[in-house]
Amino acid sequence: MKAYKKLESIFEKLAYFEHLGAITNWDEAVMMPSGGGTIRAKALAALRNLTHETLTNPEVGELIEKAKDESLSSPWQKANLGLMERFYRHETCLPASLVNQITLAMMRSQQAWRTLRAENNWHDFAPLLENILLLTKESAQIRSEILNLSPYDVLLDDFIPGIKQQNIDPIFSVLKKSLPDLIQQIIAKQKHRPHIAIKGRFPAEQQKQIGLELMQAIGFDFNHGRLDVSHHPFCGGDPEDVRITTRYNENEFITSAMAICHETGHALYEQNLPHDWLRQPVGRIHSMAMHESQSLLIEMQACRSREFMNFLSPLIIRTFGDDEAFSADNLYASYTTVKPDFIRVDADEVTYPLHVILRYELEKQLIAGDISVYDLPEAWDAAMKHYLGLSTKDDYKDGVMQDVHWPSGAFGYFPSYTLGSLTAAQMFASAKNAYPDILEELSHGNFTSLYKWLIENVHSKASSISFDQLMREATGESLDPNYFIAHIKQKYLSV
Amino acid sequence: MKAYKKLESIFEKLAYFEHLGAITNWDEAVMMPSGGGTIRAKALAALRNLTHETLTNPEVGELIEKAKDESLSSPWQKANLGLMERFYRHETCLPASLVNQITLAMMRSQQAWRTLRAENNWHDFAPLLENILLLTKESAQIRSEILNLSPYDVLLDDFIPGIKQQNIDPIFSVLKKSLPDLIQQIIAKQKHRPHIAIKGRFPAEQQKQIGLELMQAIGFDFNHGRLDVSHHPFCGGDPEDVRITTRYNENEFITSAMAICHETGHALYEQNLPHDWLRQPVGRIHSMAMHESQSLLIEMQACRSREFMNFLSPLIIRTFGDDEAFSADNLYASYTTVKPDFIRVDADEVTYPLHVILRYELEKQLIAGDISVYDLPEAWDAAMKHYLGLSTKDDYKDGVMQDVHWPSGAFGYFPSYTLGSLTAAQMFASAKNAYPDILEELSHGNFTSLYKWLIENVHSKASSISFDQLMREATGESLDPNYFIAHIKQKYLSV
Repeated sequence: MKAYKKLESIFEKLAYFEHLGAITNWDEAVMMPSGGGTIRAKALAALRNLTHETLTNPEVGELIEKAKDESLSSPWQKANLGLMERFYRHETCLPASLVNQITLAMMRSQQAWRTLRAENNWHDFAPLLENILLLTKESAQIRSEILNLSPYDVLLDDFIPGIKQQNIDPIFSVLKKSLPDLIQQIIAKQKHRPHIAIKGRFPAEQQKQIGLELMQAIGFDFNHGRLDVSHHPFCGGDPEDVRITTRYNENEFITSAMAICHETGHALYEQNLPHDWLRQPVGRIHSMAMHESQSLLIEMQACRSREFMNFLSPLIIRTFGDDEAFSADNLYASYTTVKPDFIRVDADEVTYPLHVILRYELEKQLIAGDISVYDLPEAWDAAMKHYLGLSTKDDYKDGVMQDVHWPSGAFGYFPSYTLGSLTAAQMFASAKNAYPDILEELSHGNFTSLYKWLIENVHSKASSISFDQLMREATGESLDPNYFIAHIKQKYLSV
Repeated sequence: MKAYKKLESIFEKLAYFEHLGAITNWDEAVMMPSGGGTIRAKALAALRNLTHETLTNPEVGELIEKAKDESLSSPWQKANLGLMERFYRHETCLPASLVNQITLAMMRSQQAWRTLRAENNWHDFAPLLENILLLTKESAQIRSEILNLSPYDVLLDDFIPGIKQQNIDPIFSVLKKSLPDLIQQIIAKQKHRPHIAIKGRFPAEQQKQIGLELMQAIGFDFNHGRLDVSHHPFCGGDPEDVRITTRYNENEFITSAMAICHETGHALYEQNLPHDWLRQPVGRIHSMAMHESQSLLIEMQACRSREFMNFLSPLIIRTFGDDEAFSADNLYASYTTVKPDFIRVDADEVTYPLHVILRYELEKQLIAGDISVYDLPEAWDAAMKHYLGLSTKDDYKDGVMQDVHWPSGAFGYFPSYTLGSLTAAQMFASAKNAYPDILEELSHGNFTSLYKWLIENVHSKASSISFDQLMREATGESLDPNYFIAHIKQKYLSV
């Protein structure tokens, strides 16, 4: 196992570099004054180059070949070697100069996006996005030829190893067929239910206290993580130092509370990865789809349940005083309102997949060259009208410029949200079968059984098996969108 | 200039690594949950190794030799090449394994110090410190033989290039001779002056607002820096993203306000370094002594002046309400009280040099092997009695364990504080000669003239000339401790 052990030490070093990048990336979004952006971009590009150099050293390729002939004692080691080869193959496709160019361009356009979006300034944003798209296409094209995948499949593979457009299309078809009707039925049904609007002033500091209590209840380990504020909520940092963020709107607490539950779902996954493998590829989170499944399971399945409102309502009343709008029933109504709207991150779980499908269809066309960046506003507007009945004409801010993904070069990411959502519904159904008291426990803010199921079936597996194998071991079958459809019907349309 | 230009690009890359280290080090002290300590230590050690590998690559030595034969067009390039050679020589002395061992041990003992100091736990701290001392001595010994310097001079040189024990001893002699008498005279004189104790509750958030106003007045650029809270105040980060910290005691505001002025002095230096040279050795701060001179000049010379109290007093009254204790005269009395005490960082400027001399004398003996770590508590107690008339028996927390320097391996750092203090006094005298309105301006919170003098005479010079040359160009003469003595006499003993 000499070659394999040498590889482990190289990948351990890469994990340390990754740690430095993760913390400085978190800092960039949460702490950095904007004047620090230029040097930060250059420093992160230097780090990216270093990873590229380390990983593409021909010695790594030779060690991989040698290690294949060594008798590895555990399936985790075998899986680890497979992932090492995967990283090596992807990385060696790319010339160092392109890697450097992409990192710098991404940092720049991501930083510019924060300002330009606020200004609704599509004019200055479009050329930056075009540049990112060109570089992404170049990178996808080069890898496409060597890896024998279509360019868009190459990009998908960055976020969900092994998945292809041909796996996604039929799943999204089911959603496209069912959701528009369901949305209409739900809206009709919700028209007549009582719902008191939440009004008042809810200071950020108090919202934060609620957030911290929710994190505590769900099981966040504060010795290995923290909660802060950023422009967009996210989960970053390191499995041993997980950084989640939210944002506070002092006119309501609804959004920040659930954003915190969502990010805590991500955090649990990171914090419960198997400790001995943390610094190896096999010990990291499986894929972005799996990561999103964990946040959505905690948010949409557990914390937006009627039962959880029995725990949340007294917490809200204790913090903000008694108000009929803070009853468990009324909070539940607030947290389950279905309404087509402009912003993906604020969307309810029923309309959300249509936001994703819209982006999926547009980015496939962008990568294929069927439309250009300059066609996007019109195409976006048309798709929004088609899927959600809303016009985004001249509204770039809440239209095509709303997401950080494309300006950060994360083409191919969006499907992870919806695959995560479907995965979450299927997993939660299995968890409830295994532990029939889960919902009752949630009404006391008790996540013990759910947590146990997740550690055993997801967190502890890390990247040691494929997505499909994990799903089959955890739920008895491959991913099936009908669990999500059933969940929607049961939650929003049953009497 | 091909070789020289190649060197510039190597040192630029090193500067990017340094940036990642600076931000993650700041994060470690300000943000990191304690459970993140292990991975952070390993990641920073990996970064330190990387710097070592990059710098000791034989190619660097060859390029330096070649560059010496190239005709460099500017004195800055020549000075830059000289500094590159200095870094290369120091670094090549050390084996990579020792560098790695030192970094890991430092991180561990620094993290342990935070807990053990709070617990007054010398028993568990001593072996950690002994380990750091052993590693420091090994590193100093190896370099001593190659660089032909005494081991302690090697350590001094890390913080003030070119300075030796033989330069410091006569300066400290002057202070040891004058200060004890001056302290007695000042205490006698201060016994009879009116001084109302500051009492009340001063919320951290309001203290922070005052701090931000002070930073603004002094000239801190918030687009390139920020203010936070840490266990010990410090100035870290990057010249383009300067991170200063303070701590708040809600029973008084005196300490945090001046800690912020102090760190802002450091920050001005970083923020005004010449932009074009920021990523080269010649463009960085000159030495820790020069850095401390900038903080002490702003704090001790400018902000603790009677004139500045005319600006500070209304700010305090506006924030905390009117109170006779907040008058300019009474604040001045608070800010100039001289009293021998245990804690260096809280000491007044008159007793402060004795705290430094105590540590200087002990660390020389530690490095020479004349005393061991286990002799320290007794030696510390004896020296405190001798210099300040105070016993620290059984009080490790506020005695030998009070500073982070030794557990972080920063033996040889302490003299920088007092050399900085002397430098500040001499510079401020020159600045007042050049701009006679400086004190009057300070009474309006106007730092324009002082700022101008500092940029011209210190900040813009970066590391392009020697300490002595900088002092002679700025003040007309070499460092002379009598400016400091004169400052003390004038401020504390004149009628």
